[in-house]
Amino acid sequence: MKIVIDAMGSDMAPGVEVEGAIQAVEEFGYDLILVGDEALIRTELERLGNKSDKISVVHSPERIDMNEPAALSVRRKRKSSIVMGLEMLKRNEADGFVSAGNTGAVVCAATLFLRLLPGIERPGIAICIPTLTGTSVITDVGANINPKPIHLLQYGIMADAYSRYILHKSNPTVGLLNVGEEASKGTEFIKESHTLLSESKLNFIGNIEGRDIYAGTADIILCDGFVGNVILKVSESVVDTIMKLLKKEIRANVIATVGAALASTAFNGLKKKMDYSEYGGAPLLGVDGRCIISHGSSTPKAIKNAIKVAGEFMTLGVNNHIVEELESY
Amino acid sequence: MKIVIDAMGSDMAPGVEVEGAIQAVEEFGYDLILVGDEALIRTELERLGNKSDKISVVHSPERIDMNEPAALSVRRKRKSSIVMGLEMLKRNEADGFVSAGNTGAVVCAATLFLRLLPGIERPGIAICIPTLTGTSVITDVGANINPKPIHLLQYGIMADAYSRYILHKSNPTVGLLNVGEEASKGTEFIKESHTLLSESKLNFIGNIEGRDIYAGTADIILCDGFVGNVILKVSESVVDTIMKLLKKEIRANVIATVGAALASTAFNGLKKKMDYSEYGGAPLLGVDGRCIISHGSSTPKAIKNAIKVAGEFMTLGVNNHIVEELESY
Repeated sequence: MKIVIDAMGSDMAPGVEVEGAIQAVEEFGYDLILVGDEALIRTELERLGNKSDKISVVHSPERIDMNEPAALSVRRKRKSSIVMGLEMLKRNEADGFVSAGNTGAVVCAATLFLRLLPGIERPGIAICIPTLTGTSVITDVGANINPKPIHLLQYGIMADAYSRYILHKSNPTVGLLNVGEEASKGTEFIKESHTLLSESKLNFIGNIEGRDIYAGTADIILCDGFVGNVILKVSESVVDTIMKLLKKEIRANVIATVGAALASTAFNGLKKKMDYSEYGGAPLLGVDGRCIISHGSSTPKAIKNAIKVAGEFMTLGVNNHIVEELESY
Repeated sequence: MKIVIDAMGSDMAPGVEVEGAIQAVEEFGYDLILVGDEALIRTELERLGNKSDKISVVHSPERIDMNEPAALSVRRKRKSSIVMGLEMLKRNEADGFVSAGNTGAVVCAATLFLRLLPGIERPGIAICIPTLTGTSVITDVGANINPKPIHLLQYGIMADAYSRYILHKSNPTVGLLNVGEEASKGTEFIKESHTLLSESKLNFIGNIEGRDIYAGTADIILCDGFVGNVILKVSESVVDTIMKLLKKEIRANVIATVGAALASTAFNGLKKKMDYSEYGGAPLLGVDGRCIISHGSSTPKAIKNAIKVAGEFMTLGVNNHIVEELESY
C-alpha cells in the first residue's frame, strides 16, 4: 500500500503531516510519499527522529494557500503539492492521497486528474460525526453547493457503500435534511430529492431535521454542500463557545474551580468523543481514486487516521462497490 | 398596552402561557387577552391563583396542531386561537400578538390578516442568539425557505431597526452567511445578495462563516430560512448532546461526580447564558403589526419575555422606523 500525502496542507504544515506519517508507518506499515518543500520536510523528519525507509519525499516548489480561488490555483500552480500528489495517483504511482489543504482546490484537482466514477456527475465530501448513539455520515459538506436532486441520490448511494464497508453498518438508514418531517415540506430541490430517494433501493427513512443529526436518527444525512458546510462550522463553533463560556463561569467561582478539576476526567472523555481527529479525514466520494480530505487544523493523529481511511478505501474496494451499486440503477 | 396571547400554542399549553401571562401582568402591568379553550384557561388561572383583572379570556374552539400544513389549517380553522388572535390585532383590539404554536401557521395567518409593511415582499423571523461577546440576531430562521436577494436586503434593514431599538445597538454590523469569506464564494443567490448588501446603507461587513455565528463576529446574520432553521435546530442539538454525553461521562466516574456537583454553579450560569427563554420570542419582521413567535417548548419566562418584546415593539415604534428606513431606499 502506497499513500501520497500533501505535506503542505494543514495550518501547521509540514510538521503535523510528517508526524502523522511517522505514526501511520509504525501502525499500518504503509509506504508513504510526502509531497512538499523537501528541505522543510526533511528537517521535520530529522527532528522527529524518523528511522523508517518507508517514508519518501517528493519535492514540490509551490503551495496552494487556504484562501486561493480553487480552479485558478489548480490551473496555475502545476507544481503545487496538491496537483503533484494527485498526478502521482493518476499515474498509478500510489493508491491514495491525503490532504489537509485548500478543500476547493483538492476537489477541483481530484475531479480534473482522477476523473469521476462512471455514473457519478459530481463528487461529494462525506464526513463522520459523533452522535448520541454512535457515528453518522453527512454528505455533502462543501464540494457541491448547488446540487441537483440526482446528485443527492448519488451521494446517498456512495455514502451507503462507505457506511457498509468502512463503518461496518449492515443496512445504514438514510435521512434527507429538511425543515420539517413531512414529505410536503421544503424547497422544490428537497421535494424532488425526496421523491428520488423514496424510489431508490436505499434504506431511506424520509426527512430529518437539524435536531436529529446529533441524536443519531439516521446513519447517513444528505444535504447540499452549502448547508453541510454551515452545519459543520456551526457545530464546531457551538462546542467551542460552550467550552469557553464554561471556563469563564468556572474561573469566576472558587468551588467550581475545584469541582472542574475533579470533573476533568469526564471533560476529557467528552473531548475524545467530540474529537474529529478520531475519524481521520473525509473521503471525496465520486472521484476515480482514493482522495481523503482532512481539516486544516488537523493533528498528527487526524493525519494518521486519514491515511488509514485511504488504505481501507483501497483494501476494501469501496469504489468498486459504488460502481456496482450504480450499475444496478 | 394590550397584548393577545395564543394560549394553545406551546407543547405544554395552556399552562405555560397562563403562567407567563400572570408574570407579565405583575412585571409590566399590560392588559392581556388569552385566546384558547376557555375552560382549560380558567382552570389554569385558578390553579395559579390569579387575582388580576388585567387578564381576560376569549374562547376559541379550535386548535392548529404543530404539524398541520400551514396554509390549509389557517384557511380551515377560522376559529383557531392563532386566527382569532390575529384577527383581533387586525381589528385594532390589541397592540401585539404572541404565539408558541405552529410557526408556519402563524407566519401564514399574520401575512394574510395583518398584511405586510409597505415595501416588504416577504416576512422573516428574527431570533436572538447568545454569542461569546453578547447577543446577535439571525434572520430568517424559517419563514421564507426560498428567498430572493432583495428579501435578504429587506431582512437586513428590518433586523437593523430591531437591533437599534430593541437591543440598543448603535450601528449594528451585518454579515452574510456563506461557505467562505471571499465575495466570489457561494451560490448565485449569495453573490447577488452580497452585491445588494454592499450597495446598501447597512453596516455590512461582508460574508461570514458558520464558525463566526457564536463568536459574535456580526450583530446581524443574514441567511435563507432553510439554512437559518437548520442552524437553530443543529445548535440546540449540539448543546443537548454535549450535556448528555457529559452527564454520561460523569456518571461513569465517582470523583467526577463529586466534581460536577461542585461545578454546578458554573453549569447553571452557562445554562442561563444559553437559555433562549431569556430573549423571549422571535419577532415576525415585515408584517404590519406586532407578532412574536415563541419556541414550542417555551417556559413561562419565555412567554413573559415574548410579551415584553411585543410591548417594546409597540412602545418604540419599531415598525415605523422600518418603514421610514425603507422609504429612504
